Amino acid sequence: MADGAVTPWRLTVSYRGERYGGWQRQDNALTVQQVLEEALAAQLGCAVRVTGASRTDAGVHARGQVVSLLADSSAGELVHGTNARLPGDVRVLAAAAAPPGFHARKHAAGKEYRYHLRSDPVLSPLDAPFAVRVEPGLDLAAMRAAAATLVGRHDFSAFARTGGSATHPIRRLDTAEWLADGAELTFRVVGEGFLRGMVRALVGTMLEVGRGRRTAADVAALLAGRPRAEAGPNAPAHGLVLERVDYPPEWLAIPPGAS
Amino acid sequence: MADGAVTPWRLTVSYRGERYGGWQRQDNALTVQQVLEEALAAQLGCAVRVTGASRTDAGVHARGQVVSLLADSSAGELVHGTNARLPGDVRVLAAAAAPPGFHARKHAAGKEYRYHLRSDPVLSPLDAPFAVRVEPGLDLAAMRAAAATLVGRHDFSAFARTGGSATHPIRRLDTAEWLADGAELTFRVVGEGFLRGMVRALVGTMLEVGRGRRTAADVAALLAGRPRAEAGPNAPAHGLVLERVDYPPEWLAIPPGAS
Repeated sequence: MADGAVTPWRLTVSYRGERYGGWQRQDNALTVQQVLEEALAAQLGCAVRVTGASRTDAGVHARGQVVSLLADSSAGELVHGTNARLPGDVRVLAAAAAPPGFHARKHAAGKEYRYHLRSDPVLSPLDAPFAVRVEPGLDLAAMRAAAATLVGRHDFSAFARTGGSATHPIRRLDTAEWLADGAELTFRVVGEGFLRGMVRALVGTMLEVGRGRRTAADVAALLAGRPRAEAGPNAPAHGLVLERVDYPPEWLAIPPGAS
Repeated sequence: MADGAVTPWRLTVSYRGERYGGWQRQDNALTVQQVLEEALAAQLGCAVRVTGASRTDAGVHARGQVVSLLADSSAGELVHGTNARLPGDVRVLAAAAAPPGFHARKHAAGKEYRYHLRSDPVLSPLDAPFAVRVEPGLDLAAMRAAAATLVGRHDFSAFARTGGSATHPIRRLDTAEWLADGAELTFRVVGEGFLRGMVRALVGTMLEVGRGRRTAADVAALLAGRPRAEAGPNAPAHGLVLERVDYPPEWLAIPPGAS
């Protein structure tokens, strides 16, 4: 490539959310989109606009954010050249030529998020940036029963940030499960799409189930389009990681002529 | 406690090594021992001297360093009071009353270390502080054969920092194994004791086995007291974590009268 033609690219991007006001560019905070666009512009020598698949909130981490952009470049330049200009808490993991018209957000078919809890009395500094401390003795069976009610197509209004833009609050979840490993408790959720703040509201509400303040049936009842105020609080941002974004095969195909 | 009597304590301490010149106090670098002693002194209102079980090198992390000290205090004060005065990359995870005469280093019966490698093309910023990138395609079977030769009592001179103080280079390893999980490759080693720089030298040498430059038999031959220059280079510090320190039951017993 790099033959003078501007072509579509798909980048896989990982970042730690601590220092950022989330993914999406905004006037009053540094965002991941901004530092990525600035590094790409410095590398490519021209202004670059990127689109992220997920508008992750302030403090949320990503292992597999997917980004679309148009550039006259090569995979090596987009990965290693851009990484040399990025701060250490943001990295381009991979770059691939994308089919014409590829849009990271509109064409996403599904996403996986993980939310990390730990029941240690004090969190190790090795875990603290990525996990939220909870008391031991949560009712895991009840939390698993609540998670099971989330799978399928539901109205998730009760778990959407108020003031959010979702006029269509119906989403389909394919997996919603709690994984337990020693002191570690991870909520893994895979779905076609998520409302703003949805995973953190689901975790905050299921924690109330784990503490015996709600039942799995209470959570199921919220899926009938109940208002946000009836669900539990948002769990903290730094426990959440965007793990990966899935696309239909036609949007992963390598376009003819791409190297 | 806190009845005016100075009594022995055992602290479990976790830290990220990036900012520190290792565990042990020194004149020309900030160390974990120094920041811990300063936080304890501020909390207790008197000078405090602590002894760590392992003198971890600059950049090495710990999940379960064990520290002995004498203090007129309580477990709650030693954990939460000290943590409130420590920087975020050092935490006291637990405090327990120890038997009279307890010495964290001299009484240690064994230690576990883990060394983390990843074969991703680019490391995620979530992994990069704790893992070293390696190329894919290492010969894991050969590395496992080399690790197996390390188990037992051997002369580990070939893997001890030159200029180190070990006049007795014989050590017993109880476990030495490579754990593989996707792109993650972890060396787990448990032994009665370790020479300075030993785990990093073992990993650097086994990486040469994984790359076909040495055989497992070559590694076994080094265990006959060969000089350091014949083994491989030290693997980088930030891949290494001191996981835990073990003690004989008599040094874990709660002394009579301790709360």
